[in-house]
Amino acid sequence: MNRDSQTELQREERETGRIEAFSDGVFAIAITLLVLDLKVPRAIREPATLARSLFTQWPTFAAYLTSFITIGIMWINHHQLFTVIRRVDHMLLILNLLLLLMITFIPFPTSLLAEYFGHSGEFLAAQLYAATFFFASVFFNLLWRHASHGHRLLSHQADQELVRGISKSYAFGPIFYLIILAVSFWSVEISVIMSFALALFFALPKRAVVRHLPTKS
Amino acid sequence: MNRDSQTELQREERETGRIEAFSDGVFAIAITLLVLDLKVPRAIREPATLARSLFTQWPTFAAYLTSFITIGIMWINHHQLFTVIRRVDHMLLILNLLLLLMITFIPFPTSLLAEYFGHSGEFLAAQLYAATFFFASVFFNLLWRHASHGHRLLSHQADQELVRGISKSYAFGPIFYLIILAVSFWSVEISVIMSFALALFFALPKRAVVRHLPTKS
Amino acid sequence: MNRDSQTELQREERETGRIEAFSDGVFAIAITLLVLDLKVPRAIREPATLARSLFTQWPTFAAYLTSFITIGIMWINHHQLFTVIRRVDHMLLILNLLLLLMITFIPFPTSLLAEYFGHSGEFLAAQLYAATFFFASVFFNLLWRHASHGHRLLSHQADQELVRGISKSYAFGPIFYLIILAVSFWSVEISVIMSFALALFFALPKRAVVRHLPTKS
Amino acid sequence: MNRDSQTELQREERETGRIEAFSDGVFAIAITLLVLDLKVPRAIREPATLARSLFTQWPTFAAYLTSFITIGIMWINHHQLFTVIRRVDHMLLILNLLLLLMITFIPFPTSLLAEYFGHSGEFLAAQLYAATFFFASVFFNLLWRHASHGHRLLSHQADQELVRGISKSYAFGPIFYLIILAVSFWSVEISVIMSFALALFFALPKRAVVRHLPTKS
Repeated sequence: MNRDSQTELQREERETGRIEAFSDGVFAIAITLLVLDLKVPRAIREPATLARSLFTQWPTFAAYLTSFITIGIMWINHHQLFTVIRRVDHMLLILNLLLLLMITFIPFPTSLLAEYFGHSGEFLAAQLYAATFFFASVFFNLLWRHASHGHRLLSHQADQELVRGISKSYAFGPIFYLIILAVSFWSVEISVIMSFALALFFALPKRAVVRHLPTKS
Repeated sequence: MNRDSQTELQREERETGRIEAFSDGVFAIAITLLVLDLKVPRAIREPATLARSLFTQWPTFAAYLTSFITIGIMWINHHQLFTVIRRVDHMLLILNLLLLLMITFIPFPTSLLAEYFGHSGEFLAAQLYAATFFFASVFFNLLWRHASHGHRLLSHQADQELVRGISKSYAFGPIFYLIILAVSFWSVEISVIMSFALALFFALPKRAVVRHLPTKS
Repeated sequence: MNRDSQTELQREERETGRIEAFSDGVFAIAITLLVLDLKVPRAIREPATLARSLFTQWPTFAAYLTSFITIGIMWINHHQLFTVIRRVDHMLLILNLLLLLMITFIPFPTSLLAEYFGHSGEFLAAQLYAATFFFASVFFNLLWRHASHGHRLLSHQADQELVRGISKSYAFGPIFYLIILAVSFWSVEISVIMSFALALFFALPKRAVVRHLPTKS
Repeated sequence: MNRDSQTELQREERETGRIEAFSDGVFAIAITLLVLDLKVPRAIREPATLARSLFTQWPTFAAYLTSFITIGIMWINHHQLFTVIRRVDHMLLILNLLLLLMITFIPFPTSLLAEYFGHSGEFLAAQLYAATFFFASVFFNLLWRHASHGHRLLSHQADQELVRGISKSYAFGPIFYLIILAVSFWSVEISVIMSFALALFFALPKRAVVRHLPTKS
């Protein structure tokens, strides 16, 4: 029995290992593809044009930075979830896939927003941008709820308090992005700034998690 | 002797580890590259054009979604096969490479279909799309047959019933995609919808596999 | 002492683990990026144009397939080397980087060849294509010579015969590609067919290696 | 207590394992995406044009090579740091993300420099190129200082001398790139050659590190 549970443990380790590797790959590619949206202005032009044409592109850079930070933070969160999630079932694979669908989709509304910022159509672009983040945070919550419900897929050593802390802090994501989505119907600039600020906020260490991170011993 | 078999086991673990890592990378990139097919309409246009030009692109989005789900499901299947496959031989490397050839090719017929949907040439595009999935499922079967034939490359702990269950459920793939290929000569829309439905069907957990997945203990 | 050598072993495992992971990533991306060279002909054209314009692109598909197989085979070889190489030193990292430089460069001469096949300039394109493969095989040899010289970085369990077998079979690579390079000055078609045939030849299992692959036990 | 520290060790191993895997992915993609900057000149032109148009592109190739080597060297350094860094905290994840932001950004100033070399605007392009490397080296230092401060995140077995050696050799990076940035205001050519030379210099094995690399035993 003891031996069985050990081989079971090893299999589990391997299972989450590969879902993490695949997700790491998708996150890494999505975050790196963003740079392809930064367009190099053609050189055959009048003098002194480069500085001006780069400056005109500033919404592209702002959207690039916001998307980079957001995907990066989502990777950090994904990575922290899987220090607690140790088992894999079919539903987790599907929910993880839907989350990755949103992650890989981010470069599209990002370049849409960069292209339409200041033009008619910018509202639709900002709405799509906010909606993508909203759905990403929804799938993040679904994945976590599924894994943590009755400790279904969690490590036996997972701390109850830590689990509750994650659940609480994750619940805010969809609410905040829904507010940003609402704001984007009214002001594109403010909704973009809010997305950026929210990414920075999520970058701050969460109290409940921090207390359980390895410390200098 | 016991020691030898242990080092042999370690080497095997390492071998499948790297074929999985490489495959994960290819799956992850292929699934993420799909987003590059979503074209951002240029902003220097008449007002209210963005919503309409995005709407006109809907077959692109449909093809994107179908391809994403299909590659995702194929990754899940690949991942499940390699919880059972533990040894690597040269033929497995080659068959895996041919499978990956089909996976990395998917973005091409996907964007072909998106571009030609509703235009003359859409039948050829739909046929290429279905044929790609057909060959992917054929190589999936060849890989599995090679690995499972006489338990050649399987884990010694692999359950007979599970192995037979996988063999049976995989055999349906090429048959279904052959039907879709035939349908694509007659109706592009129906063949695309069938591809989408088949991806969803494969996303459902297979009974034989599910019974052996780690459960709440 | 025994304990020291064990931690040393663990560190080594970790070192080659990461060089393999990075290389796997580069191989996986280079092999997947090839598909971006397959251009989707624009749909707004005369009827029945798709089949013809795809057919016109056939050298693109041939170059795509040859490059895919070649990179795939090189990955298999890289993977087989690192079942024997267990230690890492600075020179190995540098030589591996130079090999990867050639691997990531392959998509460029591939699309050059596809673009210029049948046009003036095709000879230069074919020469660049062959030269890239030549240098890749040279760096492969340098990497292996460095690692295997006096068993410098090899596993202590590495079989002498296997090591000699690899050394011998690898020495043929640069010679064959040098011949193909010479042929490309005289006939583009034959040099491309020879590259394709050589990739297929390398796909065949090498005798010396095969004898040491895990067999059904 | 002994058992606790062992599971703690395992968790740490896993934590740095995944930050390394994600970073490897980003490095691998950034280094491979560089090839997309090499433009294939269109074939429908006058004869003998290919050689000349490739030759005209030489700054593109120079920038490609410099960026490839620089990213490659940074990967080697990153990889060497993480043979010593064994623990992960939130700040390390953030600093690593900022470093990766610079790494993924490199393809943009690279193609900017390639496009504007010899045209007006080349000074701005060279400054952006040097500034990107400057900030990458700054984040490298911040990451290392954070991890090594009071041995915060280092392996208990990390040699004091090695740690001091890394700290010293890393401190030169920002200083050198600041000099290159200053030079780029005065001469584009010299600043590019200096970047290339600095990459080569960093490719040389550092004495302090070398002494601690596994040697033939």
